[in-house]
Amino acid sequence: MRPQVLIIGCGFGGLEAARALAGTDVDVTVVDKTNHHLFQPLLYQVATAGLSAPSIAAPIRHLFRRQRNVTTLLGEVVTLDAAGRTVTLKDGAQLRWDHLIVAAGATHSYFGRDDWAAFAPGLKTLQDAFEIRRRVLLAYEEAEREDDPARRAALLQFVVVGGGPTGVELAGTFAEIARHTLPGEFRRIDPRDARVLLVEGSPRVLQAMPESLSERAREQLTALGVEVRLGARVTGIDAEGLDITTSAGTERLHSRCVVWAAGVAASPLGRALADATGCTLDRAGRVTVEADLGVKGFPTIQVIGDLAAAQSHAPGHPPRPVPGVSPGAKQMGRHAAANIRRRLAGQASLPFRYRDYGNLATIGRNSAVVDLGTPAGALRFSGYPAWLFWLFAHVYFLIGFRNRFVVLIDWAWAYWTHDRHARVVSEASPVRDGPA
Amino acid sequence: MRPQVLIIGCGFGGLEAARALAGTDVDVTVVDKTNHHLFQPLLYQVATAGLSAPSIAAPIRHLFRRQRNVTTLLGEVVTLDAAGRTVTLKDGAQLRWDHLIVAAGATHSYFGRDDWAAFAPGLKTLQDAFEIRRRVLLAYEEAEREDDPARRAALLQFVVVGGGPTGVELAGTFAEIARHTLPGEFRRIDPRDARVLLVEGSPRVLQAMPESLSERAREQLTALGVEVRLGARVTGIDAEGLDITTSAGTERLHSRCVVWAAGVAASPLGRALADATGCTLDRAGRVTVEADLGVKGFPTIQVIGDLAAAQSHAPGHPPRPVPGVSPGAKQMGRHAAANIRRRLAGQASLPFRYRDYGNLATIGRNSAVVDLGTPAGALRFSGYPAWLFWLFAHVYFLIGFRNRFVVLIDWAWAYWTHDRHARVVSEASPVRDGPA
Repeated sequence: MRPQVLIIGCGFGGLEAARALAGTDVDVTVVDKTNHHLFQPLLYQVATAGLSAPSIAAPIRHLFRRQRNVTTLLGEVVTLDAAGRTVTLKDGAQLRWDHLIVAAGATHSYFGRDDWAAFAPGLKTLQDAFEIRRRVLLAYEEAEREDDPARRAALLQFVVVGGGPTGVELAGTFAEIARHTLPGEFRRIDPRDARVLLVEGSPRVLQAMPESLSERAREQLTALGVEVRLGARVTGIDAEGLDITTSAGTERLHSRCVVWAAGVAASPLGRALADATGCTLDRAGRVTVEADLGVKGFPTIQVIGDLAAAQSHAPGHPPRPVPGVSPGAKQMGRHAAANIRRRLAGQASLPFRYRDYGNLATIGRNSAVVDLGTPAGALRFSGYPAWLFWLFAHVYFLIGFRNRFVVLIDWAWAYWTHDRHARVVSEASPVRDGPA
Repeated sequence: MRPQVLIIGCGFGGLEAARALAGTDVDVTVVDKTNHHLFQPLLYQVATAGLSAPSIAAPIRHLFRRQRNVTTLLGEVVTLDAAGRTVTLKDGAQLRWDHLIVAAGATHSYFGRDDWAAFAPGLKTLQDAFEIRRRVLLAYEEAEREDDPARRAALLQFVVVGGGPTGVELAGTFAEIARHTLPGEFRRIDPRDARVLLVEGSPRVLQAMPESLSERAREQLTALGVEVRLGARVTGIDAEGLDITTSAGTERLHSRCVVWAAGVAASPLGRALADATGCTLDRAGRVTVEADLGVKGFPTIQVIGDLAAAQSHAPGHPPRPVPGVSPGAKQMGRHAAANIRRRLAGQASLPFRYRDYGNLATIGRNSAVVDLGTPAGALRFSGYPAWLFWLFAHVYFLIGFRNRFVVLIDWAWAYWTHDRHARVVSEASPVRDGPA
């Protein structure tokens, strides 16, 4: 029997690891909670009705149809037995492995305030995206029917918590919807009266970027119509809005549509792995891995992607943390696969080295910031050229020819018409039914 | 104040009525339970993962953005006051009208066996389509993980109840998925082992068609791999399958994916209308209307589309029932609008006359039947030419240039690759969690 490789999770890391094992004399099993690989960088466009879900989600087993050594299974791993080399799925089924790659990713963290989840959904899954789409579009619908000016204003106030890439993208797009997509379609309200606020606890947005680009991003957000509140800490969220605290004091923001883009926590599988192996977790619940991405004492278990607290080991430099971005996850996936091949060949595994090709974030129509590392030094630009660069980079990395083609059409259409074609809410229970 | 026209429901009938009132000196309010107009004839393609929802659903207010006398409201009408000329929404809000057009459509009927709904979802809304998509795709996923041969066979047996157009389309597409889309993607099962059954109580499928075309349709279904059971009555449905009775006796069909395409019942608003006006309902709950589509004793209330039991009044012919197809609903919508204009001009309303341009139904790849009334007599054809005719007719009637374009691309893609791009299940709770 050939060595059994089990990969838990088919995000960027898991997908890349499985692909990198093509042609290797192993049986690979990919197990995922959903039936699709999700192109997470464009998930905010599903949430904001610019793209339909199938354009950014590909059935996992379809991606592996020609890679005959991969078996795809739908299932949720809940516990691991490190010594017995098995995992147990939620329904009790067990899977055996000789080499394990844990790529279960991350979820939102409300910093211990899980009661906020009902009032401020996060954005990690398609289900999350549909929920945000529903809340945003139904807030306008309800405002059109609301006679009370205060309640109407609350319905037309949209708050995004968290100034990282997702928060910036969401806030910028919310502003575009209010200013460009919806005007002319309502008879009692003017969508341009909507306010979009971006609340960030630190002194700047896009903290992973150089300070100058954070400032460009803030300027572009403001130009798009977003009110950016920096140094503002959220102290409470409920069905009617949220409380923020700044150096100026405490403020109440009335809103029926709050989106949470502030905190990320590792998958609960990190906890299960710690229970099984005694490995340590960092504050965000990520698994502290060895230099080669293995778990201490269990070299046949590797952890990659957002679940791993990994270091990059470049010769001649001190180790540096690997950022939680998709190129990091992909590189870890390829590295984990290479380690398995080396072990099968009787060689030692190698330390992981992250290659940083730069960082980019979009803000809205014609607006983005790009920070590229080049041999000649850093190349930084913003605005329209950065937006074009962002656009083609994302289309390039999208999976599947059809998706690239259709997404380009959708974007061209949206650019010229300001329309967003996916403004469909399948379940139209009004916002006032509460955030159940 | 201008006369207030209230239109309940924005399907084919309601949409057409509101459009036909463009330029008329009235205020039109369109109220619908959802935020979108649904192109129902292609809903089965969303259920079978061939199209994404936004391709066949357009935001209602977007459709009316340039028609300034239309106000769109999201809401569900629950009761009517015919004398006071108001309707009450689910949340208690009231809307006033001078002229009312009720176009609330139809829903599934389980012929008094509403307990079957949990085990055999119908197909009327996007939500229904997602549920069917989920069940079909997850049945294959679960079969891949199932070791017991009997349970595996039950997971790979798909049963469609009802041989009308929707049932025929669903069964044909299910067979195509099993034979052409999924093979090669599974490692433990062969999707070609799946069985697709179409169960119909009467002696033929597509009863609205001439008998010869019903026979052509049955042949084409069989060629696609569907087992057609005619004269088979369903006597029970539960979580494990269904019981059918034929002249040969009773048979148990084990299946985890049963779809209900057998019965149609009018919207519950018909009952509310009967309570308010004393009008009579037919056996399917449809409102019996006068020759001009008005409600007896309440000429300012008109009922159109699937909610109306209407007759066509052609000069020189006895009245004939209007069939429940989209051209019928559209023609009634235009007629109701014309009646309102006539009344406003002090003229009497006119009896409705349905113009029958024919009937067509698709069965699957390259398979359809067409029955056209022409001045030279009936023109009937089937197979590939009928399928092409069906295809272009549907693209032509789709709303929105973008949708036409993208649907054509999706169909071309699916035709050449056999792939179905929308194979995404956002909520992946396994089938065995039960049909909650």
